[in-house]
Amino acid sequence: MGKDKEKKQELIKNPKGTRDWSGEDVDLLEDILAQISRVFRRHGGKKLDTPVFEREEVLKGKYGEDSKLIYDLKDQGGELLSLRYDLTVPFARWLAMNANIKSYKRFAISKVYRRDQPAIAKGRMREFYQCDIDFAGASDPMMADSEVIAIIVEVFESLEWNGRYTIKLNDRRILDGLFEVCGVPEDKIRAISSAVDKLDKMPWEEVKKEMVETKGLDEVVADKIQTYVTRKGGRDLLEDLQKDEALMSNAKAKKGVEEMEILMDYLSAWGALDKISFDLSLARGLDYYTGVIYEVITEGSAPVTANGSEVAKEVQKQGKKEKKVLDEDEDRSNDPSVGIGSVAAGGRYDHLVERFRPNADLPCVGVSFGVDRIFSITKARIAKGETFSYISSNAPDVYIMAFGGGGFDGMAKQRIEIAKLLLDAGLKVEFTYKKKPKPQVQFKNAEQAGAPFAVILGEDEQAKGEVRVKEMGLPDGHPEKEGVLVKIADLAAEVTKRVEMKKVTTRTGTIAVS
Amino acid sequence: MGKDKEKKQELIKNPKGTRDWSGEDVDLLEDILAQISRVFRRHGGKKLDTPVFEREEVLKGKYGEDSKLIYDLKDQGGELLSLRYDLTVPFARWLAMNANIKSYKRFAISKVYRRDQPAIAKGRMREFYQCDIDFAGASDPMMADSEVIAIIVEVFESLEWNGRYTIKLNDRRILDGLFEVCGVPEDKIRAISSAVDKLDKMPWEEVKKEMVETKGLDEVVADKIQTYVTRKGGRDLLEDLQKDEALMSNAKAKKGVEEMEILMDYLSAWGALDKISFDLSLARGLDYYTGVIYEVITEGSAPVTANGSEVAKEVQKQGKKEKKVLDEDEDRSNDPSVGIGSVAAGGRYDHLVERFRPNADLPCVGVSFGVDRIFSITKARIAKGETFSYISSNAPDVYIMAFGGGGFDGMAKQRIEIAKLLLDAGLKVEFTYKKKPKPQVQFKNAEQAGAPFAVILGEDEQAKGEVRVKEMGLPDGHPEKEGVLVKIADLAAEVTKRVEMKKVTTRTGTIAVS
Repeated sequence: MGKDKEKKQELIKNPKGTRDWSGEDVDLLEDILAQISRVFRRHGGKKLDTPVFEREEVLKGKYGEDSKLIYDLKDQGGELLSLRYDLTVPFARWLAMNANIKSYKRFAISKVYRRDQPAIAKGRMREFYQCDIDFAGASDPMMADSEVIAIIVEVFESLEWNGRYTIKLNDRRILDGLFEVCGVPEDKIRAISSAVDKLDKMPWEEVKKEMVETKGLDEVVADKIQTYVTRKGGRDLLEDLQKDEALMSNAKAKKGVEEMEILMDYLSAWGALDKISFDLSLARGLDYYTGVIYEVITEGSAPVTANGSEVAKEVQKQGKKEKKVLDEDEDRSNDPSVGIGSVAAGGRYDHLVERFRPNADLPCVGVSFGVDRIFSITKARIAKGETFSYISSNAPDVYIMAFGGGGFDGMAKQRIEIAKLLLDAGLKVEFTYKKKPKPQVQFKNAEQAGAPFAVILGEDEQAKGEVRVKEMGLPDGHPEKEGVLVKIADLAAEVTKRVEMKKVTTRTGTIAVS
Repeated sequence: MGKDKEKKQELIKNPKGTRDWSGEDVDLLEDILAQISRVFRRHGGKKLDTPVFEREEVLKGKYGEDSKLIYDLKDQGGELLSLRYDLTVPFARWLAMNANIKSYKRFAISKVYRRDQPAIAKGRMREFYQCDIDFAGASDPMMADSEVIAIIVEVFESLEWNGRYTIKLNDRRILDGLFEVCGVPEDKIRAISSAVDKLDKMPWEEVKKEMVETKGLDEVVADKIQTYVTRKGGRDLLEDLQKDEALMSNAKAKKGVEEMEILMDYLSAWGALDKISFDLSLARGLDYYTGVIYEVITEGSAPVTANGSEVAKEVQKQGKKEKKVLDEDEDRSNDPSVGIGSVAAGGRYDHLVERFRPNADLPCVGVSFGVDRIFSITKARIAKGETFSYISSNAPDVYIMAFGGGGFDGMAKQRIEIAKLLLDAGLKVEFTYKKKPKPQVQFKNAEQAGAPFAVILGEDEQAKGEVRVKEMGLPDGHPEKEGVLVKIADLAAEVTKRVEMKKVTTRTGTIAVS
């Protein structure tokens, strides 16, 4: 039997690297997604929902080395299909199909698929949510770009992460320009760029080693790069670069620096400047970026001060320290954000649509929010006792019961009639699917469901057109401990009023409570 | 070049049998799904979101003949996976994995995948939405079942389909019992049952032919079956069956009829009885049903009368007639519901979870809404001029512009500051991503976006701390045609007030309008 049972047990699991979203987790996820969608909608975002799979050719050649992580469908005849790897390429495919579209603000909230080695503690799953907004179409320098960054700020403010995140900002043109100025050969620029991108995970010495030993860069060149990519700041850094004659002699870098100044002006108008850290080490992996790039980092424990820029630096320092702790495999459970990478990232990519439709001329700028990570951090913060005002309760408002003595028929029909009456008033209602349920069973079910109120039917009360309304969990001696009699004609209004009152007085994070 | 270009064009399409949801379509879909979710939540439904794929073994052997329609993933090493075919089997798998759950009201809204021949006009797609609620756990006869049917009624009422749908109702036990009574051999019961299920698509004579010629049933038996399965009604039909001694001598049928009486009592308490048609021809395809079964049909043009039961009969007659029209390929565009099958269906299935966990003892009852079909019908009704109060507008509330004379710098920063001010007040805001946009360009963009109001900045007004608020599209001669001056300090309140007022006065189906 042993072996047979094992086999049965093996059948009932979800695929590796995936999860079932249920209970309070899925409710919290929905609340987070609703907040993000609301911000997107306010900024004119329009939803796009593409199929879970694309024709194989659509994805081919878009992800470089990571293409090996794409899930393919079996050839069962007909088209060859693959599961989407991100939401950006399907958006570009859709734009290419709709040649009449000259500008579009699209957002998308969907799962994407990567056949990677799962690392659940680090939030790396094979199926996970992405939540993107991208603006396609012409924009004068940094106007649309600044609005996307403003959206990032609004999203995290609406999630009540005030002061606990930093937007790292850079520009591909500055980065490529400084590599040229330092003497990186043309054909090594992307490789050196991806080495620089590791500076948030490893110290300079290791990055330099990779550049020189693995990627064959001259050590002198590497040392020059160090003088740039270890710098971060705000307008101060920008001013330093503007004074750097060597850098400013490079046309790409000059353009990037000029537009970075425009961007900072606009970000100041958006009230977003104190959330950013201009960081020359930020490179981002994807090939297709052509201008500004950004990445949002967070910590669970960064101090909140008035000086956002200082917080930014502090957050980054802490981030590195704590990531080191993680690598040594210590105490990863206490801090929700330890080991969790960026929670949002994006940038400008002006030529992706042209890969599908030559001369499409649809420059794009966008951001993708790592919703699973945002969820994990928020959940961990709730577990620590924090509350978030946007989290809604999905517990029933009322549990309907019936009590009676000998010969009592359980009043099933009457319970249904009262349920219908309260449902029609918009209340969340449950009752026990027993014809003659015992009082203690009904109370237990009501408690398990988390209903704050009970409506109790009895034959005597019914004869008088009344029912009893009882708040659950009142202490002994409370004047309404046994409930109050209410006319059935007044019941919907009375219960609605009590439910609303109760909500006002107990507005807290429900996850922590229930 | 010709061939090369063709190849490029071929690349940019979505996979066969799928669609991209965009623009007003996806907004309408979201509004419909929000209405349905609200009903589910009111009844204590909890969301479950499972992975898009399952381990191959989970789906194997669950769908009979239709298993050939399952999409498999390519074997790229590791588990063998298939895309989900419905939401019911993943729910059963999840219940089996969570042995502590004794009862659960779960709902799910997700896409499912069937490698079928697509027929877009009939609403048959390879990727389509399902929207299910299922109650797992013990229930005294018909208590949970009646609530599921009440949910169906509430969903269609909340979608404002009042009087335009009928819930066909039957019970597998009555059906199986009557087949036994008529003399159908045990091993032919499922085959005869699926022949009977075709009575909504073909006349009795053809169904009989299938039974006798294809399935080898004795003609006398077929004629006996006819006396039952061509009958529909309400309590009247139930009373007829109760008087039918032959039928009542069969234990299964007797049990089914007894519980149908209980169900009708409860449905009467739910206020749902006038929406149902007890229909002995309803059989439903899936093997796993064990008790009550139901299916919702609709018409675009059925008359609304006080007598729901009469409407039900009428609707069904019309349905058959119009489906015939469809087969002849005539005029399918005029009536949105022509050729569209049921818009919701479900029933009781008491033993599915046991397929994954022996002795699980988790009887279930549920319903699945065909959201794509509900969407198509609603959209067609809107095109005919109907309005639905739950449809929300996603157009921007305000478009921000700046006008000025020679030497005007475009006020980009100031536009951003005003945008931020209005966004913070919760308004939907857009502006043109041009540093110095022409007035006519800004007006065109505002009109295309559908913004009802413009906020217009000018240097003179700005100096006085004022901007101009203008309602779009006012007729010449209207006193506010040129807009009104508003202090920036009062702007958020003033625009919010005007936007709210406008919404109240123009509450209509936005899809038809924009």
